Amino acid sequence: MLKNRIRRDDLLNRVMSADEAAKVIHPDMVIATSGFTPSGYPKEVPLAIARRVEETGEKLNLTLITGASVGDELDGALSRVGAIAKRFPYQTNKDLRKGINSGDIKYQDLHLSHVPQMINYGFFGKVNVAIVEAIAITEEGGIVPSTSVGISPQAVKNADMVIVEINTSQPLALEGVHDIYMTENPPLRDPIPIKNPGDRIGKPYIQCDPDKIVAIVHSEITDKVRPLGAIDDNSRMISKHIINFLETEVKCGRLPENLLPLQSGVGSVANAVLGGLVDSNFEDLTCYTEVIQDSMFDLIDAGKVKVASGTSFTPSEAGLQKLMNNIEHYSKYCILRPMEISNNPSIARQLGVIATNTAIEVDIYGHVNSTNVMGSKMMNGLGGSGDFTRNAYISIYTTVSTAKKGLVSSIVPMVSHVDHTEHDVQVIVTEQGLADLRGLTPRERARAIIDNCAHPEYKEMLHEYLDRAEREVGGHQPHIIGEALSWHDRFLKTGSMKF
Amino acid sequence: MLKNRIRRDDLLNRVMSADEAAKVIHPDMVIATSGFTPSGYPKEVPLAIARRVEETGEKLNLTLITGASVGDELDGALSRVGAIAKRFPYQTNKDLRKGINSGDIKYQDLHLSHVPQMINYGFFGKVNVAIVEAIAITEEGGIVPSTSVGISPQAVKNADMVIVEINTSQPLALEGVHDIYMTENPPLRDPIPIKNPGDRIGKPYIQCDPDKIVAIVHSEITDKVRPLGAIDDNSRMISKHIINFLETEVKCGRLPENLLPLQSGVGSVANAVLGGLVDSNFEDLTCYTEVIQDSMFDLIDAGKVKVASGTSFTPSEAGLQKLMNNIEHYSKYCILRPMEISNNPSIARQLGVIATNTAIEVDIYGHVNSTNVMGSKMMNGLGGSGDFTRNAYISIYTTVSTAKKGLVSSIVPMVSHVDHTEHDVQVIVTEQGLADLRGLTPRERARAIIDNCAHPEYKEMLHEYLDRAEREVGGHQPHIIGEALSWHDRFLKTGSMKF
Repeated sequence: MLKNRIRRDDLLNRVMSADEAAKVIHPDMVIATSGFTPSGYPKEVPLAIARRVEETGEKLNLTLITGASVGDELDGALSRVGAIAKRFPYQTNKDLRKGINSGDIKYQDLHLSHVPQMINYGFFGKVNVAIVEAIAITEEGGIVPSTSVGISPQAVKNADMVIVEINTSQPLALEGVHDIYMTENPPLRDPIPIKNPGDRIGKPYIQCDPDKIVAIVHSEITDKVRPLGAIDDNSRMISKHIINFLETEVKCGRLPENLLPLQSGVGSVANAVLGGLVDSNFEDLTCYTEVIQDSMFDLIDAGKVKVASGTSFTPSEAGLQKLMNNIEHYSKYCILRPMEISNNPSIARQLGVIATNTAIEVDIYGHVNSTNVMGSKMMNGLGGSGDFTRNAYISIYTTVSTAKKGLVSSIVPMVSHVDHTEHDVQVIVTEQGLADLRGLTPRERARAIIDNCAHPEYKEMLHEYLDRAEREVGGHQPHIIGEALSWHDRFLKTGSMKF
Repeated sequence: MLKNRIRRDDLLNRVMSADEAAKVIHPDMVIATSGFTPSGYPKEVPLAIARRVEETGEKLNLTLITGASVGDELDGALSRVGAIAKRFPYQTNKDLRKGINSGDIKYQDLHLSHVPQMINYGFFGKVNVAIVEAIAITEEGGIVPSTSVGISPQAVKNADMVIVEINTSQPLALEGVHDIYMTENPPLRDPIPIKNPGDRIGKPYIQCDPDKIVAIVHSEITDKVRPLGAIDDNSRMISKHIINFLETEVKCGRLPENLLPLQSGVGSVANAVLGGLVDSNFEDLTCYTEVIQDSMFDLIDAGKVKVASGTSFTPSEAGLQKLMNNIEHYSKYCILRPMEISNNPSIARQLGVIATNTAIEVDIYGHVNSTNVMGSKMMNGLGGSGDFTRNAYISIYTTVSTAKKGLVSSIVPMVSHVDHTEHDVQVIVTEQGLADLRGLTPRERARAIIDNCAHPEYKEMLHEYLDRAEREVGGHQPHIIGEALSWHDRFLKTGSMKF
């Protein structure tokens, strides 16, 4: 059965059990794996490593580098047995998060576009083992990724040993959807020759020296994709405000009629924002993004999208079924690239992407917190938001105006952690409305954000802070520095930002 | 005398006095000018506009867009007569700064690499008049810039009317040093074909429809360059720490022997850091930076630098004399590009620049404040620091560990304004030492920064904050949110961060 998946006879003798393969893992190793926003990650081998630790009680102290978040079979299973010492650059797993926030697991939250080159540069140390999920190994020894690409090309290139998980639950029809191109390290790096979101510039597989493949493991475990929340009223309003804004930009001649390549963050709101375009008048859209979610298939079905480029398919359970049942159809519109290319600042800048990402909180001057709740506690991580925001044609942040049943305002005097600065953020949208910050001074931005985006229950408090800061302190970006974070302090003490 | 400077007879009748040319300026106009980090900015026409306002008392409400900072004849003269309503994207003038901090002049502080394209996109509104300093107008109607390029190509392209100041104090020998290449707006934008810092990809002049040139004004006023501070012990120590670090990176195989293209911020410390390389063992260096300062000429003289690419010459008075007296010699090593190209994130990423910029303050987790003193008061602006930092091979920030005679620590629990985040900053250097933050978690970064970079007088206070934050709050990036900015609050109340 693996014959049409492993197309070199000299590799058939490397097929072994996951438990056997897991033996190559030694303490203190640096492991780089496939997987991006839980899809296409290895499953059998990580589970086998976790089993081994449980049985032997050994302390592995692994450094684990992935593309982005991976499923519970990897992050969860290894966290629970204490096998992960260091983790880069993004995660969404609850057990791993617990270890990160307690300080037990060392986590660095990085721009995704930086990670592949940092692996090449040697900034994380030598990669010992790459573990990558694949749908096939070609006659050339090429590894054909499954539902994501992420850092797999750099993992394979830099690792001493490669373990391939051939996942037969992933359809062979995915073959051809990938476009693998890698950059050289400076000073040998050339401009990336992409001119349009649909350009193919590489090979449909990851080149790999067959001698480095130390194990091939058969897997049938499906991707544990995350459920998408139903599209609620807040998401619908946010989507509506964005579409109105884009329509105005077209009318003013600042955007072409078919817009520019769309990038959209991950999750329910992002999915809803993109989904809103199905009922819009926009046609011939293109997407240059990280993650291809459910609404992209709806846009393809509606004949709205010509091409969707990303680094992973991350649909919901239902979306995954739809994708798998019509894979030949959707493959014609989709390209999966290495995250070095999907998130590349050069290409985002050159194509002029319209970037829409999600904030935890936004302050009156336009700084955005995407990562640390109340300044200290890691939620997930930065992901690719900064890669796109900084280099976008227009950069948009969305957030619902309140959280915790209204006890937390998502618009605050000063954010408790900054991931995206005033210099990077152009548009803020909540269900209340949209603030276009382009060309505005900090004081003007503050009024635009409070008046358009804050929840009515917090507007007066925000205006009061701003007025007092202007009057009592002044300056370019007036802050009463002893009070700037008092809303967060109040919440931590009383459970409410209000009193 | 202007004959060899204005090489088209049909343009000679546009030569007029500055006062005459200033008449095309009407209230509420958007003016875009040449000039970058005070060099190559227009002088006679702005002075004439200021005279006109003084005489007539009219309210001009101009929007002024430049490359970066410009001299007192432009920012100072127009600020003092209240002619500037809005100002983008960078400045260093004391009268202008006063207006910005009082809120009278509207200022938006932007990534320099964003500005040229924002002009093209129409985000600032229609540009009415471009005023550019030039050394000549060619037979083709090409405008040859003087000591800087900045946004001049986009100013000329987008303006309805162009005023050229032919400055005969600037030597004709500068002709040929410029390389003018412009990108199209998306979706027509192509990858920028630069592979090496020395590549020339454009023309030696700015293309301009001669019909748009409404006035040509003769000027003899020299650039008012800023003095460079003498190289002091702190700068020498900072330079030494950086050179040691780079030597180690080479030894570890993470950098080539001749390093990678160097980018260096503007000012005395930056000049000293680069100057330190004269006595190093590094050879065949290249520079891909914004501003070419005095130490670059020393490096060229020492045979250390093969090529220096920037968007302006900004030497001290003494450096300017040296440049002007040997312009043919230095021109062979130097290229001046539009700031869209000098600061382009694509090229910084592709070439893998080593970026060194200056911080006002740095916090224990590696966030950097480059702009707003004590959170509210604008110093100068962001400039190109973010363009290079985010896209660098290695990004370095320097600061002297204390300011205000030791009453202010430049290393603080939390910076009062964030311009560069923990995700962007890799190395912090003070006269005390260097902290390499690559691969470190926030808690590890904090200890590295405190132990290596903080002034001994503040180390204990910083450790005490960190220990208490870890113990009492915990989380990925432990902060006692009610105290995080208390050092700044204390300084504002007592004049000291100590008590």
